[in-house]
Amino acid sequence: MKITRGGRLEGDLTKEISEFISSFQHDIYIAREVIEINLAHLLCLMDIGIISKEEGKEIAKVLLEMHIDNIPPDMEDIHMVVESELIKRLGEIGEKLHTGKSRNDQVATAIRMRLRKFIIEICKNIINLQEIIIRKAELYKNSIMPGFTHLQHAQPISIAHYLIAYFDMFNRSFERIISSYRRVNLSPMGAAALAGTGYKIDRMKIAEYLGFDGLVENTLDAVSTRDFSLEVASNLVILMLDISRLAEEIIIWATKEFNYIELPDEHSSTSSIMPQKKNPVTAEILRAKCGEIIGELVSMLTIMKALPLTYNLDMQELTPHLWRACEISSKSISILSDLIAKVKFNEKRMMNAVIDSSSVATELADMLVRNYNIPFRTSHRIVGEIIKEIYPTSLSKIDPEIVSEMIYKKIGIKPEVKLIEKALDPWHNINVREVIGGPSPLEIERMINSRLQIINSNRKLMESIEEKLMNGLKKLREEINYLF
Amino acid sequence: MKITRGGRLEGDLTKEISEFISSFQHDIYIAREVIEINLAHLLCLMDIGIISKEEGKEIAKVLLEMHIDNIPPDMEDIHMVVESELIKRLGEIGEKLHTGKSRNDQVATAIRMRLRKFIIEICKNIINLQEIIIRKAELYKNSIMPGFTHLQHAQPISIAHYLIAYFDMFNRSFERIISSYRRVNLSPMGAAALAGTGYKIDRMKIAEYLGFDGLVENTLDAVSTRDFSLEVASNLVILMLDISRLAEEIIIWATKEFNYIELPDEHSSTSSIMPQKKNPVTAEILRAKCGEIIGELVSMLTIMKALPLTYNLDMQELTPHLWRACEISSKSISILSDLIAKVKFNEKRMMNAVIDSSSVATELADMLVRNYNIPFRTSHRIVGEIIKEIYPTSLSKIDPEIVSEMIYKKIGIKPEVKLIEKALDPWHNINVREVIGGPSPLEIERMINSRLQIINSNRKLMESIEEKLMNGLKKLREEINYLF
Amino acid sequence: MKITRGGRLEGDLTKEISEFISSFQHDIYIAREVIEINLAHLLCLMDIGIISKEEGKEIAKVLLEMHIDNIPPDMEDIHMVVESELIKRLGEIGEKLHTGKSRNDQVATAIRMRLRKFIIEICKNIINLQEIIIRKAELYKNSIMPGFTHLQHAQPISIAHYLIAYFDMFNRSFERIISSYRRVNLSPMGAAALAGTGYKIDRMKIAEYLGFDGLVENTLDAVSTRDFSLEVASNLVILMLDISRLAEEIIIWATKEFNYIELPDEHSSTSSIMPQKKNPVTAEILRAKCGEIIGELVSMLTIMKALPLTYNLDMQELTPHLWRACEISSKSISILSDLIAKVKFNEKRMMNAVIDSSSVATELADMLVRNYNIPFRTSHRIVGEIIKEIYPTSLSKIDPEIVSEMIYKKIGIKPEVKLIEKALDPWHNINVREVIGGPSPLEIERMINSRLQIINSNRKLMESIEEKLMNGLKKLREEINYLF
Amino acid sequence: MKITRGGRLEGDLTKEISEFISSFQHDIYIAREVIEINLAHLLCLMDIGIISKEEGKEIAKVLLEMHIDNIPPDMEDIHMVVESELIKRLGEIGEKLHTGKSRNDQVATAIRMRLRKFIIEICKNIINLQEIIIRKAELYKNSIMPGFTHLQHAQPISIAHYLIAYFDMFNRSFERIISSYRRVNLSPMGAAALAGTGYKIDRMKIAEYLGFDGLVENTLDAVSTRDFSLEVASNLVILMLDISRLAEEIIIWATKEFNYIELPDEHSSTSSIMPQKKNPVTAEILRAKCGEIIGELVSMLTIMKALPLTYNLDMQELTPHLWRACEISSKSISILSDLIAKVKFNEKRMMNAVIDSSSVATELADMLVRNYNIPFRTSHRIVGEIIKEIYPTSLSKIDPEIVSEMIYKKIGIKPEVKLIEKALDPWHNINVREVIGGPSPLEIERMINSRLQIINSNRKLMESIEEKLMNGLKKLREEINYLF
Repeated sequence: MKITRGGRLEGDLTKEISEFISSFQHDIYIAREVIEINLAHLLCLMDIGIISKEEGKEIAKVLLEMHIDNIPPDMEDIHMVVESELIKRLGEIGEKLHTGKSRNDQVATAIRMRLRKFIIEICKNIINLQEIIIRKAELYKNSIMPGFTHLQHAQPISIAHYLIAYFDMFNRSFERIISSYRRVNLSPMGAAALAGTGYKIDRMKIAEYLGFDGLVENTLDAVSTRDFSLEVASNLVILMLDISRLAEEIIIWATKEFNYIELPDEHSSTSSIMPQKKNPVTAEILRAKCGEIIGELVSMLTIMKALPLTYNLDMQELTPHLWRACEISSKSISILSDLIAKVKFNEKRMMNAVIDSSSVATELADMLVRNYNIPFRTSHRIVGEIIKEIYPTSLSKIDPEIVSEMIYKKIGIKPEVKLIEKALDPWHNINVREVIGGPSPLEIERMINSRLQIINSNRKLMESIEEKLMNGLKKLREEINYLF
Repeated sequence: MKITRGGRLEGDLTKEISEFISSFQHDIYIAREVIEINLAHLLCLMDIGIISKEEGKEIAKVLLEMHIDNIPPDMEDIHMVVESELIKRLGEIGEKLHTGKSRNDQVATAIRMRLRKFIIEICKNIINLQEIIIRKAELYKNSIMPGFTHLQHAQPISIAHYLIAYFDMFNRSFERIISSYRRVNLSPMGAAALAGTGYKIDRMKIAEYLGFDGLVENTLDAVSTRDFSLEVASNLVILMLDISRLAEEIIIWATKEFNYIELPDEHSSTSSIMPQKKNPVTAEILRAKCGEIIGELVSMLTIMKALPLTYNLDMQELTPHLWRACEISSKSISILSDLIAKVKFNEKRMMNAVIDSSSVATELADMLVRNYNIPFRTSHRIVGEIIKEIYPTSLSKIDPEIVSEMIYKKIGIKPEVKLIEKALDPWHNINVREVIGGPSPLEIERMINSRLQIINSNRKLMESIEEKLMNGLKKLREEINYLF
Repeated sequence: MKITRGGRLEGDLTKEISEFISSFQHDIYIAREVIEINLAHLLCLMDIGIISKEEGKEIAKVLLEMHIDNIPPDMEDIHMVVESELIKRLGEIGEKLHTGKSRNDQVATAIRMRLRKFIIEICKNIINLQEIIIRKAELYKNSIMPGFTHLQHAQPISIAHYLIAYFDMFNRSFERIISSYRRVNLSPMGAAALAGTGYKIDRMKIAEYLGFDGLVENTLDAVSTRDFSLEVASNLVILMLDISRLAEEIIIWATKEFNYIELPDEHSSTSSIMPQKKNPVTAEILRAKCGEIIGELVSMLTIMKALPLTYNLDMQELTPHLWRACEISSKSISILSDLIAKVKFNEKRMMNAVIDSSSVATELADMLVRNYNIPFRTSHRIVGEIIKEIYPTSLSKIDPEIVSEMIYKKIGIKPEVKLIEKALDPWHNINVREVIGGPSPLEIERMINSRLQIINSNRKLMESIEEKLMNGLKKLREEINYLF
Repeated sequence: MKITRGGRLEGDLTKEISEFISSFQHDIYIAREVIEINLAHLLCLMDIGIISKEEGKEIAKVLLEMHIDNIPPDMEDIHMVVESELIKRLGEIGEKLHTGKSRNDQVATAIRMRLRKFIIEICKNIINLQEIIIRKAELYKNSIMPGFTHLQHAQPISIAHYLIAYFDMFNRSFERIISSYRRVNLSPMGAAALAGTGYKIDRMKIAEYLGFDGLVENTLDAVSTRDFSLEVASNLVILMLDISRLAEEIIIWATKEFNYIELPDEHSSTSSIMPQKKNPVTAEILRAKCGEIIGELVSMLTIMKALPLTYNLDMQELTPHLWRACEISSKSISILSDLIAKVKFNEKRMMNAVIDSSSVATELADMLVRNYNIPFRTSHRIVGEIIKEIYPTSLSKIDPEIVSEMIYKKIGIKPEVKLIEKALDPWHNINVREVIGGPSPLEIERMINSRLQIINSNRKLMESIEEKLMNGLKKLREEINYLF
């Protein structure tokens, strides 16, 4: 930690303190980005004559050769590693590169660059997951299952209907994350320590070299805000919450009692002692990861609370939690995708579950409203009573004639048996719910098609984002190459 | 709680259990919205002939007369209050309105309607705060203050520069919150319990009556997601974090030691025992509110974790935290606006603070780089040594001639005294930093003007959103009025 | 808010600011405690002659008559309500009572007094819950059920065994909460604003009057710490976590698919639209309350983070979360107790579940180890293979002769059919696990008896705590009564 | 991951899934503990004849030679590493050790063993910190400083008084953590997977070998609870909160404006660009660590929420957060101790700060009460007015004669100048506050002495705990050595 201490402070730090205040363990995430920033900054310093062409060439050479895969704990951070290597190799020339920039703007820039990569990776993973879900939905388009509220059978739906719900949830996550991208992809460079650099450095040019879409304009703001991290982390937490809901259902559905799904062996493990076990281990970890990431977010939020402007070292401790949140999310989507791709639904069992319960009750009540003009609340009460009386038999298993009779006794109206029969048929239940977004096969068909289009447009969006990003960095490489 | 229990379940709930599972304490937030939904749904049921024109008129009359300002704890929720009042007043006719809808879609719809109101209120409050900040920045355009990093003097900036940083932070909060609006303002109505209604209700029409921009399409998703609440709450937390940073600075700056600001008496209180006290009480509460809202978010996230689809009663417990998050934010912005409007900066004291410290050191080092081609790292070390040697005197208070001499002794170059004098002048420090977003007066002028335009466009955006919203509800009122 | 402002500050607060910084909404929790503190302090001021006997009588009279059930929002807090009432009624005499104390020590004292009441209430509720659990365990002493890991059938256990696990979990919560009591029940009075009072007030005496066990000695610490609140809230969160686990099991066990329990109608509700529903509503709310209380704790922790000593107004915002945490916990235990008391286990269904699955597999493997000296890992693998081969039939449903044959084919050893039969018998599985804390009936019997003794000793502990507390307050009342 | 899969499940896991569900990254924390458990379990299996003396010797030899410092990601966990190594080296004999135990009880046991080590380390660190604080207090026994509320000068106190407050705060942390120890140091071994082992293993004996004080009795509870982790983590969070308060004060006091302390260079760093900077970096990291650990706790709590009994793999994800919480705390105390040991208080500056403000105001008001029988509220108002009138001069700098005159004009009583002079003297302010726990030198002396005794008794407690722990493990080693 000698480079910067020299002038102002006595002695050096103990090993324990060095490690305590250093970001060495996590700066490896931004090592490549820091090199790129230094290259871009180099070009700008050459533009304004602080560094000569000859010097620039030497510096660029060293930077391009640098491969940092480990940061020693006695180094304050990655920035010092780069600078000290430059000085070691080039002497005075190496001492020139840190002109007109500070670690404060540099680290903010590097975090944004690394984060945008994670965003792109995660968004592409989401699209992949969406595709797997929608393919599965196509496969189970004609499979009836019980829809649940309060984990109790509610009304018949189809497996496709259910899967599309998750598609849509994940699509909102995609929307949220990608809408944060444009607040992430802004360049702080040129803000220097906080007050902006006094050199005539072109902030727009360095931003462009680094693939940014614009600037974090106010220089104080540029070095002191981490709201972009909090925003992305919050979005990831919501994504993981939805994953935890799906994981919970997988765990419940994989029980002996539910037996709604056949878990792939590749996502199961057994017990060290109980040989019969087939445990839904990936689903459990997915559920736990949601708990973890909520904590990561809380760490980040709490670290930032009440920090005065501008930079404080506290902010260094925020970043590892951001990386962890990104990795948790990215891996979880990937594992979940594989799980969904391989899971099998026990269609027969699910259909039987529908028949065994009385989830057609609402339709029976609706039928009375439609055909006999009975007010819904009355009709609801009558059907409730019938269910209680026939318990534990289910509505779908009782003779429609008897149901008709029971209704007659209650209200003096005897509904047609045909109508009752239809109302108690799960398929009719689904077909009749042809409202937009409902379970009717026609509507499911339409929804699947529109979701396939969404996947397409999400893909195109990602391509255009990546292309834009690459163009900047490509230009940087080219101009660096011109030096040689 | 009798209406719905009748058929299926025995007896009634004890008072203790009733209160435990009821949302009566918080449903008052959505009372008005629930009435509006019932009116819109009524029109749709009339369209498809479930309710006759005559019946519709009677129902509408009762709904319009209903004023709910208190929900008894033995009522399960607001929906039951409305329905039981209808039945009490209209008998069988009243029993008809709950056809083709469920509390599940209804409550999701009402929450979204109430939340969009909060969003609009909060966004308008933010714009107001932004205006106050930018007016203050204009006022202190020519006031120098120490810029801080690590709460240590870093480099001279201006009060305007500092205030614009907060303007920009709050503007990103505005952007985030308003970008969530379009995921909030979607209608779940027609989803019924979860599987969609089997009646031919026009989901788009009811959405339009209620001022929505579209549907939450998949009916399972419509009743089971609360991601829109989590998204808004997360955005509010980030807003409150920025407020807590400002509050912390106000508290520190109002100390006897800093004395950077004169706190308005209206934002201060004294002690019950120490007569000399002038405590920054509103700033302290603002800081605490940030802690509170982080907890509200955590409650919401944790409640939702691992809930299977679709609706679970757990979700009812989420909503009060959302309202609290909204109220905390809305009030805090309003209090902060008043505080900023009234606070006075002690310009003289702040200027003296700049002179007393050595925050011009970077410029001195930069000057050596610019004029004498000294590598920055060397120049940084030299200036560091000088500061240590003259301690506790500050750079700005030492004779430039002496500084020149000291430099000469170190590196054999004797810089022009004029150049040193300039480098040590805080005003020069600011003027030279004319990079985009920097503290130079010209750039500050430009930034203030562009922010005034941002205020304008934010205002216009809000107007268009409100207008669109009102149009739907206006149409609803009109069609209801046609009945009479 | 006039009393204290008068001297030092201009004007008055706006209504909005008043409400923002006031604790009026929550001080009602400590209204009675504040009166008691004032009475105790009065006696001490009379002891040292600051207040005469005559004056003391008048003040005591007013204090005893005061009934505060509502605090106006323009009052800063409850302390100001009491003092202004005293001054209104007694003039100058009323102005004397705030000698030698401050709101800072007074509020810390009152919170501790209110909190200890909550602790006692909660601990007694826990004991009640424990008794209900252990009575239930006695009832289901001979009922076999599947023990779960990963929500998969693991090994047979008994319902009593399962219930005792929760008894023990709740007992640790009891231990934790009551061990916090002694850090709660310490008196800050006499610390005044922060530096202690300059009057010769006897801190021990006032502590005794108020039922405290001792002092928070250091006066700075006395007014600035809230660790006792955080400690209790953390303990309550752990309690609620255990409740959420039980609630989750109740919800899962009440599904159509599991059907392990019959939920009491008093803890169920139905749907507004689906007449067949019987939803486990209290269990869902219990589960949600765990999410809520985690958030309350986070609010409290985050509010306290990085607050400089001593008192800051931020701390006022912490207290409502403490009360909410206490109320959530107290009510939840009470509701859960009623639920456990009334729930019925479907013993037959649970026994069948054991037979249907292969949860006796471990014992089969163990038998091979015990009787044929086969290494456990080999034996584990063999049994695993057999289960896979006979799938979907379960071990308990297969002819032991066949199992013996299968084993023979694998390892050349043919186990006695009798031994296999026994190993596959769920009752034998339980009986053989007679290790301390295991499911064997004898051990269950012993555990139930020892838990009944724990209930007794917990009860006695609570009685002694309450008695000690009452003695102090009784003495206070007596001495006050002597005045008249 | 082959050992356990073999029988029941097809194929193997992909690398990605293996890594996702494995605890390999964190099991290194418990590697040594797992070996010890295996050794103790070995002795028990030998006792009951499952393993012969000869076999036992071989197994013990391999276990003693095992040095695990890295767990390959394709291994499920540490338990599998140990077992597969045994099998690799000993074949069938190695397959015998996993008889009568499960990873479920083994991991719970290992975590408790590792955690108690951390508890002991942390508690000893706290004692060390306490000693440093109290030595510092002795050093600054006679140094006056301003006591703060709301970060405003309140009343004069001494540096020793202030330091003792932190001593006491940390002592309560010590109490809390050590009181959790007895719920941590209980053995789950013998619980096996969940239902207890069917072998005649002596649970008490294995507990004793491993240094435990008793059992987690109920076997279901033994494998499924993690409340002991949550409890310790909560206590550590409270500890870190107090550290964050001190860190905040250090940061504020190290500002140019406060200048209350001289930060040791070893705890400071400078800027990469601003040569004059001396940043309080360790204090900033300490403050941030508090934010981090709150998040760790939230992760742990949220992971556990609503997990059904008994073991779920989610619980594996909890443990790394526990280790992180322990390491954060242990290191932070150690860094803070060094910082406190080396920091210098600027006594002169602090004394001047007292004189410059009017923090003697309370005493002036008190004096009027004591000597002229003026009601406190009146006296409070008068002094408040005087302060406002003489502003910005402070009370301590004004001629007592003038003060006397001002009072006379207000209430017609002219206090003795001598009395006023005394009231305005900071030393008198401190001396007169001789209440228990107050700042008077005599009381400070007494408190320092009693705290030295607390340090002693804390030390003795730790020694007895460590001794007890070691005795068990010593016995284990001895019995293992007997084998050879």
